[in-house]
Amino acid sequence: MGKIKKIGVLTSGGDAPGMNAAIRAVVRAAIFNGCEAYGIYDGYEGLIEGNIVRMHSHDVSNIIQRGGTILKTARSEEFRTPEGRTKAYEKMQELGIDALVVIGGDGTFSGARLFCQEHNVHIVGIPGTIDNDLYGTDYTIGYDTAVNTVVDAVDKIRDTASAHNRLFFIEVMGRDAGFIALRSAVATGAEAVLVPEIETDLNDLDRYLEHDYKPHKSSGIVIVAEGDKSGGAYTIADQIAKKHPEYDVRVTVLGHIQRGGSPSAFDRVTASTLGVAAVDALLDDQTSIMVGIMNKDIVHVPFNKAIKNSKPLNHNLLDITEVLSI
Amino acid sequence: MGKIKKIGVLTSGGDAPGMNAAIRAVVRAAIFNGCEAYGIYDGYEGLIEGNIVRMHSHDVSNIIQRGGTILKTARSEEFRTPEGRTKAYEKMQELGIDALVVIGGDGTFSGARLFCQEHNVHIVGIPGTIDNDLYGTDYTIGYDTAVNTVVDAVDKIRDTASAHNRLFFIEVMGRDAGFIALRSAVATGAEAVLVPEIETDLNDLDRYLEHDYKPHKSSGIVIVAEGDKSGGAYTIADQIAKKHPEYDVRVTVLGHIQRGGSPSAFDRVTASTLGVAAVDALLDDQTSIMVGIMNKDIVHVPFNKAIKNSKPLNHNLLDITEVLSI
Amino acid sequence: MGKIKKIGVLTSGGDAPGMNAAIRAVVRAAIFNGCEAYGIYDGYEGLIEGNIVRMHSHDVSNIIQRGGTILKTARSEEFRTPEGRTKAYEKMQELGIDALVVIGGDGTFSGARLFCQEHNVHIVGIPGTIDNDLYGTDYTIGYDTAVNTVVDAVDKIRDTASAHNRLFFIEVMGRDAGFIALRSAVATGAEAVLVPEIETDLNDLDRYLEHDYKPHKSSGIVIVAEGDKSGGAYTIADQIAKKHPEYDVRVTVLGHIQRGGSPSAFDRVTASTLGVAAVDALLDDQTSIMVGIMNKDIVHVPFNKAIKNSKPLNHNLLDITEVLSI
Amino acid sequence: MGKIKKIGVLTSGGDAPGMNAAIRAVVRAAIFNGCEAYGIYDGYEGLIEGNIVRMHSHDVSNIIQRGGTILKTARSEEFRTPEGRTKAYEKMQELGIDALVVIGGDGTFSGARLFCQEHNVHIVGIPGTIDNDLYGTDYTIGYDTAVNTVVDAVDKIRDTASAHNRLFFIEVMGRDAGFIALRSAVATGAEAVLVPEIETDLNDLDRYLEHDYKPHKSSGIVIVAEGDKSGGAYTIADQIAKKHPEYDVRVTVLGHIQRGGSPSAFDRVTASTLGVAAVDALLDDQTSIMVGIMNKDIVHVPFNKAIKNSKPLNHNLLDITEVLSI
Repeated sequence: MGKIKKIGVLTSGGDAPGMNAAIRAVVRAAIFNGCEAYGIYDGYEGLIEGNIVRMHSHDVSNIIQRGGTILKTARSEEFRTPEGRTKAYEKMQELGIDALVVIGGDGTFSGARLFCQEHNVHIVGIPGTIDNDLYGTDYTIGYDTAVNTVVDAVDKIRDTASAHNRLFFIEVMGRDAGFIALRSAVATGAEAVLVPEIETDLNDLDRYLEHDYKPHKSSGIVIVAEGDKSGGAYTIADQIAKKHPEYDVRVTVLGHIQRGGSPSAFDRVTASTLGVAAVDALLDDQTSIMVGIMNKDIVHVPFNKAIKNSKPLNHNLLDITEVLSI
Repeated sequence: MGKIKKIGVLTSGGDAPGMNAAIRAVVRAAIFNGCEAYGIYDGYEGLIEGNIVRMHSHDVSNIIQRGGTILKTARSEEFRTPEGRTKAYEKMQELGIDALVVIGGDGTFSGARLFCQEHNVHIVGIPGTIDNDLYGTDYTIGYDTAVNTVVDAVDKIRDTASAHNRLFFIEVMGRDAGFIALRSAVATGAEAVLVPEIETDLNDLDRYLEHDYKPHKSSGIVIVAEGDKSGGAYTIADQIAKKHPEYDVRVTVLGHIQRGGSPSAFDRVTASTLGVAAVDALLDDQTSIMVGIMNKDIVHVPFNKAIKNSKPLNHNLLDITEVLSI
Repeated sequence: MGKIKKIGVLTSGGDAPGMNAAIRAVVRAAIFNGCEAYGIYDGYEGLIEGNIVRMHSHDVSNIIQRGGTILKTARSEEFRTPEGRTKAYEKMQELGIDALVVIGGDGTFSGARLFCQEHNVHIVGIPGTIDNDLYGTDYTIGYDTAVNTVVDAVDKIRDTASAHNRLFFIEVMGRDAGFIALRSAVATGAEAVLVPEIETDLNDLDRYLEHDYKPHKSSGIVIVAEGDKSGGAYTIADQIAKKHPEYDVRVTVLGHIQRGGSPSAFDRVTASTLGVAAVDALLDDQTSIMVGIMNKDIVHVPFNKAIKNSKPLNHNLLDITEVLSI
Repeated sequence: MGKIKKIGVLTSGGDAPGMNAAIRAVVRAAIFNGCEAYGIYDGYEGLIEGNIVRMHSHDVSNIIQRGGTILKTARSEEFRTPEGRTKAYEKMQELGIDALVVIGGDGTFSGARLFCQEHNVHIVGIPGTIDNDLYGTDYTIGYDTAVNTVVDAVDKIRDTASAHNRLFFIEVMGRDAGFIALRSAVATGAEAVLVPEIETDLNDLDRYLEHDYKPHKSSGIVIVAEGDKSGGAYTIADQIAKKHPEYDVRVTVLGHIQRGGSPSAFDRVTASTLGVAAVDALLDDQTSIMVGIMNKDIVHVPFNKAIKNSKPLNHNLLDITEVLSI
């Protein structure tokens, strides 16, 4: 493969705040380096169908602060088949697109990896998911914003919990990972946190509530990751409420607000940094890798590693939750 | 009854942002007018139990911006009985508290009205409820903040709806009244709104979605008041999704975040104005009334009227929703 | 003049949050009523130069929440001359634009009034200015958002004022009117407020600081409207600081942040209501009027009246500031 | 020195959002570890004067989300003298306070270092300053919040800049360091950034404006750190405006809003982590050190090092600003 001239960019999978900042960075870094930039709409679906437009610098003006993704995102059944990926390859050939930057998570990179194996394409991934569950990068784009959204919501709920002396169970996103739950729990001073990575023992929670919460506190917050094995906030709250009718228990499921909103400064900086790094990596002949940030340095992580390994929770934060909820 | 010297203030019923601003105004206006101010904790329950403290000007410093209520709120079964109210009266006599300002909604004023009928007490009410469903005042304290909270949340959901081409059903508070739903719908540019005051015809909604939404729009928002007769956001979304598997339907129930948060400028000004007006009314020998704002003027509305009458929705806003969702 | 078919819309003068919501409402109301809608860029300048594009419903999708104005705004020297207005008229004739909705303030309506007098044009104005200084409407679009922006900023400054026991003078917008200053002062619990409408007696301020602030408070906020006759926050702070070196005095000029930001719910509802009302008024053969809201009703105010009269401050709020700063 | 039993905590120097979260963490971690916790008001001044109170777990309830510092902060002339520090030592002896956690910046740690040299005291520092200019820690408490406050303000100004096609010079805090300026510049997509660490060549800025800004962009943002050698935003804007009357130049100095506001999730997590780490360090017999976070690990940095060394700017971000402003 010769020198890269035309770089396409797409967003795929669940959307995350900061994806627009990353798109902007990819487009401008491509142009800065003498390439043409192409926006691919609706993820891999749009790649197959050729829903692709040339993008200039001003096409990404004034989007750094916007939630969502101007390129939209979709799940593509067709791209999961070899035939679909061949169509995508042919479309790239037809348009002369040499290389791709794909912004998304696990599923996005799995698809990209197969695509790289089967066809002579150059692809670099940018970790964009609120869940922060990608191995090989300290932060994924959207995570910091999602945590701030949760914190802002829990602060509001704390107001009313405290006015009524209530115990709230608040469910946050995270089907397989407790990153959002744990970090929000520390940041909101939650009384307890339940995450998928750790078997929930409701007896432990019960003991804490009896010994530490009930005698000393008039209101409380328990953060529950949606993927917690004990069945979500409603199930847990029910069990606690049945056992302790003396608690005034309430449940809130924060839901999709966690995916939207103007990205935080942190996510915009991460997105801008990784967008530039992705283009640099392509121009350095890298492919089938994700760019990430580890200990402030840009790193290149093979798709394979990013997908297969799982990132551990910060256990120090778990300890801190316990210390600070006395 | 002689000149008023000691004024008690309490918050009761559901809490609302701006209650603290109202407490601050009552306390300072009482002191400004040469009275002593007393904070009564936990609503009528605290009045019966004597959970009451003298408050000085600095006790309400730096609370104007806080959500919740520093005096807390509770529902009191005992105060619903004549015996409970007699106990409350005796406690007031014991402490020499001449008059009360009660901040809350319907239930708060019903209790206050009975209390006034049975005992020689001076009580003025301040409308504090996010639902805005009190007759005799254009705005209740907390309503503007709650609408802004909903709008902020829906803006976030719009980001992700639009990234995925989804149709969202979003449930907001309002068991008997559609004020929050209607105003948020206009402010977020929602595609449709369902309120308790108007019989929901799902066929209408279906027709709108078929003729206006489906051919022209890629994503949409339907705001549903929790008290809507057709059964809440989940029920409606289910029916629509069953009939139209081609829509990508999602549901979010905003829940208790609507009760919290730092009050908006509007609510703080309303709360400050009504707090001062409540003390003025007491000193003018008014009792068994709510102070409200109608057409920018302070008005005095007998508790009886405020409770019995129901405030109509602004039908102009309903029309506007229809015009602007094309 | 026959039936109106093509309606143009422009924004002019200083921009205000909510202008986009008003543009959206005008465009969609026009289309809803069977007319064509045209967006005119850069205010009257764009009208003269023909910087005008047809707008469809989807062109105003997803702008209700955006600050600024997608049509931009500019001051036009040429439109102040009869020749310029004649050019503008000829451009309208050329494009077949029958009627205009102009969104702005004083200057915008002065120009529109002359234009109506000299040419056979139908023009309706929408009050869009953060200053709220237009006679004939209770609220102008952008005012509520600007006040909330100020309140949010002052809340932040209160944190640091209180950490350091400092006295802050904060300058807010309002060259001729104290609406933003007064309302923010009440909403932030400011110790004092200085507005252009009332002669500032620094001796009064000094007395207040000596008798009420110094002995009782450890930190304070004085809100100063930029148009205050005594010369702005820096001048006043200097004089106070010179006389009282014992105060730790600081100054902040809030500046242009007051013009931006996502509009508040209130401003979006006002903008949507007035946008629809403006189109209705044109279709009812109204011209040379501003639509406004008085006591919840839509009103039509001749440009002449809106410009010439001045809206009085709410003196009740001035009294409240005094009562509540004890 | 024997086992530590009583730990005092104070905040000193400029206040920063997140200081309350750190105070809460220190108090609760002390109690969790079987010690008593003492809050020292007004920084070192309060230590000398004995303005000190015992703090229990509930005294730090519900402060994690608050800006400012409940312990207040002050500069102490007396503590700069050996006599002052001796008084402070005697006060600690008198009250039996064994150890201190001091939250602040450069000046705070300089004082603490001398105190440790002269007296047998155990002191651990927590980096709390919005400027992020402390060597030995990736982040200081308050920095992320301050950057988000700047980003939020610049987003608002971008709205109005873009409505009017204006070039804004925005001055942000940072007397000696450009961290806030640089990070905000990347996060807001600023056209250029001027920092104290790099000699500003106005000819460079001028060339950029002529070649990249003027022909391609209609509005722009230049972020200027207050400590920039060329003299601040007003001076630079004046020079550019004089040379290019064709630009519509405006200036805003963001000022003290940067010090306040509810801390971001990031700052709350950092503050909680470092608060616990500071108590752990004391109990591990550490003294005269600052706890920091480097590459996600807790580190112990001698005061001497933290003060004497200067932390370098992230040059990668400078490059990114250039790439992305095309």
